[in-house]
Amino acid sequence: MQNLDSQIIRPTLLLDKAKCILNIETMLAKAQRSSTRLRPHFKTHQSAQVGEWFKERGVETITVSSMQMAGYFANYGWNDITVAIPVNVREIDLINDLASKIQLNLVVESQETIAFLQSGLKYKVGVFIKVDTGYQRSGIPAESTGSIRLLVSLMKESDRLNCKGFLAHTGHNYQAKDQEEIHKNHSKTLLALNELKDVFRKEIPGIEVSLGDTPACSISEEFYGIDEIRPGNFVFYDIMQYVLGSCDEDQIAVAMACPIIARNIDRNELVIYGGGVHFSKEYLEADDEGTKLYGSIVRITENGWSEILGGGYLAGLSQEHGIVRCSDELFDEFGIGDLIGVLPVHSCMSANLMGKFMTTEGEWITTMNSEQLSVNNEQ
Amino acid sequence: MQNLDSQIIRPTLLLDKAKCILNIETMLAKAQRSSTRLRPHFKTHQSAQVGEWFKERGVETITVSSMQMAGYFANYGWNDITVAIPVNVREIDLINDLASKIQLNLVVESQETIAFLQSGLKYKVGVFIKVDTGYQRSGIPAESTGSIRLLVSLMKESDRLNCKGFLAHTGHNYQAKDQEEIHKNHSKTLLALNELKDVFRKEIPGIEVSLGDTPACSISEEFYGIDEIRPGNFVFYDIMQYVLGSCDEDQIAVAMACPIIARNIDRNELVIYGGGVHFSKEYLEADDEGTKLYGSIVRITENGWSEILGGGYLAGLSQEHGIVRCSDELFDEFGIGDLIGVLPVHSCMSANLMGKFMTTEGEWITTMNSEQLSVNNEQ
Repeated sequence: MQNLDSQIIRPTLLLDKAKCILNIETMLAKAQRSSTRLRPHFKTHQSAQVGEWFKERGVETITVSSMQMAGYFANYGWNDITVAIPVNVREIDLINDLASKIQLNLVVESQETIAFLQSGLKYKVGVFIKVDTGYQRSGIPAESTGSIRLLVSLMKESDRLNCKGFLAHTGHNYQAKDQEEIHKNHSKTLLALNELKDVFRKEIPGIEVSLGDTPACSISEEFYGIDEIRPGNFVFYDIMQYVLGSCDEDQIAVAMACPIIARNIDRNELVIYGGGVHFSKEYLEADDEGTKLYGSIVRITENGWSEILGGGYLAGLSQEHGIVRCSDELFDEFGIGDLIGVLPVHSCMSANLMGKFMTTEGEWITTMNSEQLSVNNEQ
Repeated sequence: MQNLDSQIIRPTLLLDKAKCILNIETMLAKAQRSSTRLRPHFKTHQSAQVGEWFKERGVETITVSSMQMAGYFANYGWNDITVAIPVNVREIDLINDLASKIQLNLVVESQETIAFLQSGLKYKVGVFIKVDTGYQRSGIPAESTGSIRLLVSLMKESDRLNCKGFLAHTGHNYQAKDQEEIHKNHSKTLLALNELKDVFRKEIPGIEVSLGDTPACSISEEFYGIDEIRPGNFVFYDIMQYVLGSCDEDQIAVAMACPIIARNIDRNELVIYGGGVHFSKEYLEADDEGTKLYGSIVRITENGWSEILGGGYLAGLSQEHGIVRCSDELFDEFGIGDLIGVLPVHSCMSANLMGKFMTTEGEWITTMNSEQLSVNNEQ
């Protein structure tokens, strides 16, 4: 095996396959322990190869965030896919294409969308009603059983729309100030979904309820009455999840290796090749004064990376440059041309931008973005 | 010509070619008026086709933000390219490849990089010393003439490194609170570069100084002593530039057309298909209470878009969803399946993520990202 350092020319998203597989196995064990199905969200990695690591461990059902992503994974043999975003009715041709081949599950929250699907669908699909348990992004408020019943009865009249139950996303867990708040949000979602299950048990035969977010699925052991969980980010984790307490530092399975291109001794700053087009510009506020943190610093080793180095952080990002602010010791350790590692704040965004990953064994892993754009000059 | 609405299935970055060409011609006219050379930064569009619109108007010199981008444009016949980021010494093979074919100009700011280039270069390159006139990202402080002289003399001993002069980027103009501050920053950069030119005129035959940022190049008419300007964003502009006063609303040449996938009548919110993987998550603070603005709203018309609609803005972004917060009137205007337009906060980031643009005449424009990833599974 070659030393990683010698193989890296420009910003490269390193993937530690062993950590990643342990993350998969840990979440799968939790789902089994809780008698719930794991339907992992594949929007984080967007990679058929990473998908195989789930498949090898018995996972057969997945979640994606776009119809194109459903198409990509269907091409790689996944045949039970939930597209966890309200249906974009303009994609009816692709929806029909996929519905003719696989068990496709859609998410709806309005009469208009149901009516459109009923007239446009040529094949049967599964449908989840999106309910809102506090995130306030999309979905019908879980307590609005009247509005929900209307959608359920509209689907009962349909021969194409098979209402399967309810789907929620506790996305406000990402804004939680501590684990207690995550537990509280999660309990509220659990309660709301169980109540809906009770209310609609007769009207929806075989009713299922689905929830999913990495913070709650990582922290909680309580999934009473929940038929499936849909966490996604846990496959890689990142600094945001670490700060929320969803993972330990050594569960973070990706690190961006970046060449150092300049050093400023007056400000103890390293300038790295690695910017907004690699990391995205998401950040965390590191203190009460609004200090922005775009990533944490590690040392790239022969076949991976070190623990987080104190005394340094990624403090700024332009399109292609980044600024690492350092203590004296850290600054002295790195010279021009050296690599430095950065654990990203939000691995979903960084993985999407990079479009491919290098394993710590030096192998390239492709994704939907690196495969599809080649033929994707037309929609 | 087909109606745009019928051609758009999913989030699509629309490009108004007429506005874009007017932006190019306006900046070119200013450069000519100011007796300075326009060396436009192509990192915003990253597109050979958009590049042709410059070439057709006599532009022969360009700036890029990565060596790979230099390679892409060199393949399309550009033969005088400045890579405006400190050299990444790990890319020496690509540097040599390009230096053998075109006039390649690099940016340096350290002895280490000069020594490395002197030993690794097989062909002659032009070199600009990066000077810092207040941005504090990279570069030698412009007043540190001792440190600068050391680099100049190191290059004088070299047969491969042809020192051409000094390059500055007044990037702090993006944080300016008003136009007065932009003028002040710009004057400081002008003065610093003219002083350096005076000091090093004898040591660097044919010395040139280069500056570039869209705010100053858009607002100022003063470029005394400046040999070239390198603005980039002006080709498209965006809401950030509009807020800075760099452009009028009708100069913004790109808008993201997004399908509406859900409506929340309780909160007057439209949920759009269009998220962080389309726009990036950059935002502006819209008021003193920290309200985040991710884009401004327009109506998509038959062959373009309307003026900015009051009473609505893009208020939130997830990976694939966006939330448009609306007045009553605006909310009532848009139904599920309709398109809504969003003028992005930062067009460079959105264009990079999208990788292709649809002109308002319905033609697809490709970029480096849509062409290169197909063969780029190896570095």
